Amino acid sequence: MKFELTKEFISDLSEAIASGNVTFVSESIADLHPADVAELLEEFDLDEVKIIYEQLDEETASDVLAELEEDTREEFLASLSAKEIAESLDNMESDDATDVIQDLPEHRKEKVLSELEDEEQASDIADLLTYEENTAGGLMAKEFITVNENWTVGYAIQEMRKQTEDVSQVYTIYVISDGGVLIGTLSLKRILFADDQTLISKLYQGDVLSVKADVDSEEVASIMDKYDLVVLPVVNDEGILLGRITIDDVVDVIREEAEKDYQMASGISEKVESSDSVWMLTRARLPWLLIGLAGGLLGAQVIVGFEDQLKAFPVMASFIPVILAMGGNVGVQSSAIIVQALAQNTLGFESTGKKLVKEFVVAVFNGLICSIIMVAYTMVMHQDVNLALTMTLAMISVFIYAGLFGTLVPLVLNKFKIDPALATGPFITTANDVFGLLLYFLMGWLMYF
Amino acid sequence: MKFELTKEFISDLSEAIASGNVTFVSESIADLHPADVAELLEEFDLDEVKIIYEQLDEETASDVLAELEEDTREEFLASLSAKEIAESLDNMESDDATDVIQDLPEHRKEKVLSELEDEEQASDIADLLTYEENTAGGLMAKEFITVNENWTVGYAIQEMRKQTEDVSQVYTIYVISDGGVLIGTLSLKRILFADDQTLISKLYQGDVLSVKADVDSEEVASIMDKYDLVVLPVVNDEGILLGRITIDDVVDVIREEAEKDYQMASGISEKVESSDSVWMLTRARLPWLLIGLAGGLLGAQVIVGFEDQLKAFPVMASFIPVILAMGGNVGVQSSAIIVQALAQNTLGFESTGKKLVKEFVVAVFNGLICSIIMVAYTMVMHQDVNLALTMTLAMISVFIYAGLFGTLVPLVLNKFKIDPALATGPFITTANDVFGLLLYFLMGWLMYF
Repeated sequence: MKFELTKEFISDLSEAIASGNVTFVSESIADLHPADVAELLEEFDLDEVKIIYEQLDEETASDVLAELEEDTREEFLASLSAKEIAESLDNMESDDATDVIQDLPEHRKEKVLSELEDEEQASDIADLLTYEENTAGGLMAKEFITVNENWTVGYAIQEMRKQTEDVSQVYTIYVISDGGVLIGTLSLKRILFADDQTLISKLYQGDVLSVKADVDSEEVASIMDKYDLVVLPVVNDEGILLGRITIDDVVDVIREEAEKDYQMASGISEKVESSDSVWMLTRARLPWLLIGLAGGLLGAQVIVGFEDQLKAFPVMASFIPVILAMGGNVGVQSSAIIVQALAQNTLGFESTGKKLVKEFVVAVFNGLICSIIMVAYTMVMHQDVNLALTMTLAMISVFIYAGLFGTLVPLVLNKFKIDPALATGPFITTANDVFGLLLYFLMGWLMYF
Repeated sequence: MKFELTKEFISDLSEAIASGNVTFVSESIADLHPADVAELLEEFDLDEVKIIYEQLDEETASDVLAELEEDTREEFLASLSAKEIAESLDNMESDDATDVIQDLPEHRKEKVLSELEDEEQASDIADLLTYEENTAGGLMAKEFITVNENWTVGYAIQEMRKQTEDVSQVYTIYVISDGGVLIGTLSLKRILFADDQTLISKLYQGDVLSVKADVDSEEVASIMDKYDLVVLPVVNDEGILLGRITIDDVVDVIREEAEKDYQMASGISEKVESSDSVWMLTRARLPWLLIGLAGGLLGAQVIVGFEDQLKAFPVMASFIPVILAMGGNVGVQSSAIIVQALAQNTLGFESTGKKLVKEFVVAVFNGLICSIIMVAYTMVMHQDVNLALTMTLAMISVFIYAGLFGTLVPLVLNKFKIDPALATGPFITTANDVFGLLLYFLMGWLMYF
């Protein structure tokens, strides 16, 4: 039922293209869903993409263009004329069309808009282009159905028939006042089972949840997620309906947000994929490596500072990895818990003080358990009570320090409206490396001197 | 427009409950959305929750119960009688009702089902309980609308009127053959604008995407996401319609999946939240700490093995943090890229060999850049060419080793159907600690002896 892209399919298609067997190409892709064609195109180079694309019927071609990944699409659009792009935009929903030409150079955008045959579509797109990409306005589409509260059901059905030509899927019908203000919604179900003479004002449901156009897209996602909405209307300051956001666009926002936090925690500074170029991958990974390197060198300075101690007790060098591993892990764990709570809005109303106390207790618990193992190990391997005591004290202080620091940093960043995910991954690890070593050697100094 | 939970609201409510001012409680929550009430209840303890819950009208109470977080709900359900639970299930959609009683003890489940007034609902829930929670069957609901292909539009509308009583939101109408097999879909829009005498078979759209009941929920999420579906029908082996999955349930799957990968990468072994108990938090974090400790101790053994070398060149101890930081960061970065590609199905058809070659090149690039900085640092601080050379060689080999290992491990785990996210976080870091140190001291041994 579901199409599964295979290596064989790709190589068959590839050969057919190479040998100019356009009929084979056209037949192979005829029954595919546009999303499958888009996935398929990712595996071919630009010249081949053009040949495959040309075999698609007009409507499928539009859908494929809307589904393509952004970088592939950008490259492909550059090879099309403004007229060709405009033709494909005519069949798209206004929000998809806007996404497609969003990143074109300004003069090309205008050229494409002027080539559009459907003037309403052109003005819709021009309007949508004025909104920031990561706001409700940037997510919304202009295709929606409205009825006036003073219409009868019979008249409303007539009017809706005209409006639905542009609208592929009717999720809900918006009810507006004479002044155009959104006052409620109406399901198709209610219209279907109502008498023709009934007034819309008797049927509709008020109390409709909407957002302003400048609301952040993550806020939109959290509202739609929380209230289980499939579609959310967007209004201006006067309450006049501007557009509607559908859940499929918001799913992308939710996924991208979660991915971004994960990439940040893993020390990757831009959105990259395993299929990206070596240069992209190198660039995305270098910043955190440099931060890690700087942290490591600071750690090196700490160790050099305790050189005499190390010379007297060289066994202390061997436990550096233990201290670093523990500090890093505890820090990443505690910051991840806070970052995730902030992202999901589940932080609740527990005060920061209470959180820190809790983190302190957790740190002491886990620190004690790990210390017991350390003491056993040290006594078996080195039979040195001072060393065992040093390790215990160092371990517990590193746990407490790393836990509190990991909890506090994302909270503080969030307070200053900086993305708390910045705190996770290499940043916390790096800071904890330096302070963990300091604590460790200070404890050693206290014990041995 | 959107309700914002505040500390004041909570404390006002809390005081009203303490002073027995039930009218205030009831008025405060009267206009809230069930999702807001559920969020609110998270801030109160069980006795207070009961008092607030009792002020809700029957339908809102059901919705609130469905929206509550799982652990809060479990605790709360334990304080209700089977009859009380049954009453609230009568108003729910079958999938929500199933989720609510899913985790009750077996005998209580049966008790609740026997107390249900709506027999159809009871049998729907009993049926849904037979499916695994993380499959299509576990996600689906039984409320859907079907029409026979041989009906006329007029007759279909009559039949639908009966069916829609149970269905709060009609996303699509399913068209079935005489044998009950799902053969297509029909939008309300098409019915609305068709003539009463038209046969459904002339109107419906075939080629409907569906899944079997035992399909994994992550697979369901990826299909609905890819094809931008709001609703997806579930069928049995004979193609007979069993239920439908809506996008809001799948959004949760997508979010939970992304969160799970993030938590794993951060070394947290169970789903925990910052508001969980100290005991839960300790338990979720200890396993990775113990793995990290074991890795650290292995690292310590490596260092002890090179004790003579360290005594001769104590400065080598100071660069241990640099080597550990670099190995850890590179490993986490490369594994995160693969884990994310696997999760999103964007791995493409690039062979493993090609991926490793690419990772190799990236590692050499980044390793070279970091080495240059290291050489400069070493020459300025220690004026030791051998040390600078050791660091360069060690750095580049650690980059290559960590990059290849980080790329390979998740791919191998995935091949053996083990969650590749296991590879990220402390596991990769720990392994890289040990091997990184080995490589470093081996290079030092090669250079100095």
